[in-house]
Amino acid sequence: MSFNTFGRVLRLTTFGESHGPAIGAVLDGCPPGIALSEADIQPYLDKRRPGQSRFVTQRREPDRVRILSGVFEDGDTGGPRTTGAPIGLLIDNVDQRSKDYGEIRDRYRPGHADFAYDAKYGIRDYRGGGRSSARETAMRVAAGAIARKIIPQVNIRGALVQLGERRIDRNRWDWAEVDNNPFFCPDAEAARQWEEYLDAIRKSGDSIGAVVEVRASGVPAGWGAPVYAKLDQDIAAALMSIPAVKGVEIGDGFAMAAMTGSEAADEMVIRDGQPHFLANHAGGILGGISSGQEIIARMVVKPTSSILKPRRSISRSGEETEVITKGRHDPCVGIRAVPVAEAMLALVLADHYLLHRAQTGKG
Amino acid sequence: MSFNTFGRVLRLTTFGESHGPAIGAVLDGCPPGIALSEADIQPYLDKRRPGQSRFVTQRREPDRVRILSGVFEDGDTGGPRTTGAPIGLLIDNVDQRSKDYGEIRDRYRPGHADFAYDAKYGIRDYRGGGRSSARETAMRVAAGAIARKIIPQVNIRGALVQLGERRIDRNRWDWAEVDNNPFFCPDAEAARQWEEYLDAIRKSGDSIGAVVEVRASGVPAGWGAPVYAKLDQDIAAALMSIPAVKGVEIGDGFAMAAMTGSEAADEMVIRDGQPHFLANHAGGILGGISSGQEIIARMVVKPTSSILKPRRSISRSGEETEVITKGRHDPCVGIRAVPVAEAMLALVLADHYLLHRAQTGKG
Amino acid sequence: MSFNTFGRVLRLTTFGESHGPAIGAVLDGCPPGIALSEADIQPYLDKRRPGQSRFVTQRREPDRVRILSGVFEDGDTGGPRTTGAPIGLLIDNVDQRSKDYGEIRDRYRPGHADFAYDAKYGIRDYRGGGRSSARETAMRVAAGAIARKIIPQVNIRGALVQLGERRIDRNRWDWAEVDNNPFFCPDAEAARQWEEYLDAIRKSGDSIGAVVEVRASGVPAGWGAPVYAKLDQDIAAALMSIPAVKGVEIGDGFAMAAMTGSEAADEMVIRDGQPHFLANHAGGILGGISSGQEIIARMVVKPTSSILKPRRSISRSGEETEVITKGRHDPCVGIRAVPVAEAMLALVLADHYLLHRAQTGKG
Amino acid sequence: MSFNTFGRVLRLTTFGESHGPAIGAVLDGCPPGIALSEADIQPYLDKRRPGQSRFVTQRREPDRVRILSGVFEDGDTGGPRTTGAPIGLLIDNVDQRSKDYGEIRDRYRPGHADFAYDAKYGIRDYRGGGRSSARETAMRVAAGAIARKIIPQVNIRGALVQLGERRIDRNRWDWAEVDNNPFFCPDAEAARQWEEYLDAIRKSGDSIGAVVEVRASGVPAGWGAPVYAKLDQDIAAALMSIPAVKGVEIGDGFAMAAMTGSEAADEMVIRDGQPHFLANHAGGILGGISSGQEIIARMVVKPTSSILKPRRSISRSGEETEVITKGRHDPCVGIRAVPVAEAMLALVLADHYLLHRAQTGKG
Repeated sequence: MSFNTFGRVLRLTTFGESHGPAIGAVLDGCPPGIALSEADIQPYLDKRRPGQSRFVTQRREPDRVRILSGVFEDGDTGGPRTTGAPIGLLIDNVDQRSKDYGEIRDRYRPGHADFAYDAKYGIRDYRGGGRSSARETAMRVAAGAIARKIIPQVNIRGALVQLGERRIDRNRWDWAEVDNNPFFCPDAEAARQWEEYLDAIRKSGDSIGAVVEVRASGVPAGWGAPVYAKLDQDIAAALMSIPAVKGVEIGDGFAMAAMTGSEAADEMVIRDGQPHFLANHAGGILGGISSGQEIIARMVVKPTSSILKPRRSISRSGEETEVITKGRHDPCVGIRAVPVAEAMLALVLADHYLLHRAQTGKG
Repeated sequence: MSFNTFGRVLRLTTFGESHGPAIGAVLDGCPPGIALSEADIQPYLDKRRPGQSRFVTQRREPDRVRILSGVFEDGDTGGPRTTGAPIGLLIDNVDQRSKDYGEIRDRYRPGHADFAYDAKYGIRDYRGGGRSSARETAMRVAAGAIARKIIPQVNIRGALVQLGERRIDRNRWDWAEVDNNPFFCPDAEAARQWEEYLDAIRKSGDSIGAVVEVRASGVPAGWGAPVYAKLDQDIAAALMSIPAVKGVEIGDGFAMAAMTGSEAADEMVIRDGQPHFLANHAGGILGGISSGQEIIARMVVKPTSSILKPRRSISRSGEETEVITKGRHDPCVGIRAVPVAEAMLALVLADHYLLHRAQTGKG
Repeated sequence: MSFNTFGRVLRLTTFGESHGPAIGAVLDGCPPGIALSEADIQPYLDKRRPGQSRFVTQRREPDRVRILSGVFEDGDTGGPRTTGAPIGLLIDNVDQRSKDYGEIRDRYRPGHADFAYDAKYGIRDYRGGGRSSARETAMRVAAGAIARKIIPQVNIRGALVQLGERRIDRNRWDWAEVDNNPFFCPDAEAARQWEEYLDAIRKSGDSIGAVVEVRASGVPAGWGAPVYAKLDQDIAAALMSIPAVKGVEIGDGFAMAAMTGSEAADEMVIRDGQPHFLANHAGGILGGISSGQEIIARMVVKPTSSILKPRRSISRSGEETEVITKGRHDPCVGIRAVPVAEAMLALVLADHYLLHRAQTGKG
Repeated sequence: MSFNTFGRVLRLTTFGESHGPAIGAVLDGCPPGIALSEADIQPYLDKRRPGQSRFVTQRREPDRVRILSGVFEDGDTGGPRTTGAPIGLLIDNVDQRSKDYGEIRDRYRPGHADFAYDAKYGIRDYRGGGRSSARETAMRVAAGAIARKIIPQVNIRGALVQLGERRIDRNRWDWAEVDNNPFFCPDAEAARQWEEYLDAIRKSGDSIGAVVEVRASGVPAGWGAPVYAKLDQDIAAALMSIPAVKGVEIGDGFAMAAMTGSEAADEMVIRDGQPHFLANHAGGILGGISSGQEIIARMVVKPTSSILKPRRSISRSGEETEVITKGRHDPCVGIRAVPVAEAMLALVLADHYLLHRAQTGKG
């Protein structure tokens, strides 16, 4: 029952605001004996970091993470290793430019959490979105990097599969392409077209939505649990907790509404002496438990409301006004959501690995 | 950290298998002093109950719920009222027909949880799906009826908005129609067409998917909480925990991928002296907190894999086989999922009402 | 964050009032594959059951427990076995005699929870103490019997070591005596003296306090966890949650205030090639983690306030009055608390066994 | 289900080792709008800080706490105020002297957690006790200072009531004396005698146990909750989680074993039109719920095992050895446990205040 903690056995607690002195996290429940240093985390943070292309916010944050606790090194340990104690993580905020945000202090940006926060708390750290800023997701990415090390047998990858109305061609899917373009797009041809498309949106002062797909291979059958600890339930919660996400689906997702039972049920055969599925409409999860197939999930990221086009809104004192958000923002926040979605999937899977081990002793 | 408990302050724990002696639940955290008797719960159970039309399973379960604890009545209380103690609920299983299920004991139904349960636990109550049976959702509906009484100011309604490929016409939406057809369909014309459509599927021994929409009006601004207790996160978890659900979306959901920021941001004005939104693309939730607009969520329900068409599968002992599910099943499990989705939304909202009251003192 | 749930991975939720139709429980998180039937539980319930000697309440409750879910039997399973699904337990209330309690409806029994419940909830099921009745502990005992089967390598035993001012002579401690007298007393000589002592108290219409000691042998080093999941912390919470318990201590407990560090530190040597402690002042727990020594805990049970001597009190409407509790009560509730304390220790240890397995993979 | 998190609605998560770069905490669930700055916290930390008299460790830690998040200030807020976001707290470790601890790297200090940690995790940060160090309690004290501000109507105070065999004379109890001596002793005469007594122990290279009493006045009737969220249960868990604590009692505690029901039941009358208790044997808690009387709890703190007298022990590699702990330690760790016990009581009470408000709307 925590407001700012995620997970069941492996638990991530984050804190910090966009323009406070630092953001931080505590990852609790990590098994002992895992080799871990900042170098294991930084590459994932760098993927999420702002300022890397013209398609993401130009805020300059080095996002250097420090591990404050939970690892130990001496001659016996062969480099720093987790001790089983909680892992404290901290990133100093560097490029804050609070002055940019002065004018949204007293007016609510449409589509943002400003109005809802004020309605709830009566007080709001408006600088850069405060606690509601996507900056918090840096800690998710850091924790996700650790989660990956708990389940090294699992390979977790994400990609942008739709930008605005433009979907990738799944026949051209090539994981190797994901790191070759500024979109994490697995379709090289689509990525080329997206550049021009997104440039136009960006120059118009507007933004656009996107769909992110994440996949995990190497998950054995048996992770997850009925009835209220379902693997897909936890994935849904994990992805939906990411800022701007408005929908989540597993496997064929919403397309399954139009399918018949005979189409949708993934048939099984024996291949090489092992159970083998002839399809994966279910996205690797049956009855809330992994089936041994690849886990597949998608999430939709709405277009950010931080745009240069004037929008009608109201002030804190109840007067009608207009809002233009002049800060440095992403024309498509879905892009930088890719490493965040990967991290959340990693956290859910590592958590369920431990949970499965708790109840069944397997693992 | 429970496998079979849902909620933060208001917590629902369920137990029971499809063909055991009974199914039951404990609802903990309910405020004291609320008038409550079985008569408040039974109408919702009756909506979910099997056997009410040819479009749902013909299993005959009266689904009579008994309240075993947590309410008290004497001369002072004016009828039975909640005491603040946990509310125990029990429904005896009556029409079990275990014999129907003998032949699936040793083979895995494709698209069902059979294989995953065996992989996880090594033992499986195969009778009627055991714990994975949708029968568990009766307890959700019962608990949801109580949740509604905690937040009487909120009106929660659900509808089937897509059956297979057939979507309703939203211009014909009429809540009054929902109880006039066997589909909980708000579009009378669509409902008429669906009868023939679903009859054909049913007669072919197949099944079909569906999309359910649930809405809550009367939720004030301020319920929900960042960052890992978001209202939409909990709604996503709640709906995704329902059997056969493969996707969840809030507001415009996946359609927001193709929207621009200027389209998607719900503008605000002052109307009658109050904040007023000019649109509700966000589905009533901003930054994880209710905005005061109507809460709107949808979920996709996959077609049940319990069909009369033979499907390839494997046996427990690792041999290839075919499976036909001869039991009494629903051609579209999405229909009976409507009251279940309503119940889960009610549970989430009542929980967040209490949670909001805890932190802010507002209520 | 539950009001009526105990445990971390292995979670017990109870419901039911003393004079309602039934009391019940859900035990969630139990590993699959454990042989379990009512016959495993009933002997422990029988130890706690009222009416077995003149020193405990004469209420006649057969306390027959039914397992409603979570176990399954067919030819393959060799008797009923746990499935990993939640285990529902139910005991019908039989001998309720509500009429006995009519006169305490409007007045608060001193030393009882009546006043505090009314202050909190504004409504109170006064029949037999309602939810605050020790009757709830029957479900703890039932769940504890299951917990024992999760950790068969651990032997959990309890005894009454002090009745009123009369302490046992620890030199005469003989576990075999515990079942030979109505007090669960390990000192046969003390038990003989207690009969007369307690008879006098009973006949005077009064009651007396007691101290219960519980021990667990066979717990390996490593169970428990810093900093807020300490084994002794959870034992303290478990025992303190038992009605009428006002204190808990581990190992030498309060006597350690007067000890020096050189006396209190349990020295270690190697014996038979294994670590061996020369003393056990710590009660088997160091830094919140089991040391491999016997776990030792004690709790004090206050004298019940349900006595025949008139006591000054007030009525619900705020008038001074006197209260005599005429119901059938225990002259020393500490006696029947012995099996309850054992059960709570079993629940904590089984829970920590699973928790330890989750984080470390050992066990 | 957290290893390093305490609380139900108001949740404290701590991290950090004695000789790592820093220790830290996240306090989640704090209500918004509370005036809060470091100046509110520092005085409590100063009470716990080492190096203030010859009776506590001479480690020199300024223990300057920084608030990293969860508070916000601008012209409207009248100084920094809580926002409802998680409050991040950090204290840099300054005086670490890791060299002192090199020799306990490979041998287990008797009475310490060294052996148990190694048995559990297989790896151990031995520097200054690592995670098991009492240094972690600084974060409890910091969080407790915030908890006090959530419930300003409640006055929480602690005192040392027994040092070794020497108890205070309760007739001389004077709260004003607590800050006049290095023991937090409310009995000036006792404090004078303790100086000589503890000096002798200190000079002999030994240590001694103690008993701490904490009291809270101003708690209204109604906080706490049956059955597994009892106020006394949570207090017991809170105090037992403090390092070196081996026992907890509420009200008359273990002395109630020897009391009769007619002695122990706190009688009630009406005084000035209000319910009034004639005694407080129950320590302000009935049935797990506050009665409106003063909350009274005690805990025993064992003598630290970090002493200069050689003790028999074993090495990591399984050889017999002797251990002398040369670090800078407290001859009576019970002294500095006083502000820690106060803090834990404050956290429990503030948590139950929010919990009570959640379920009942009162408060």
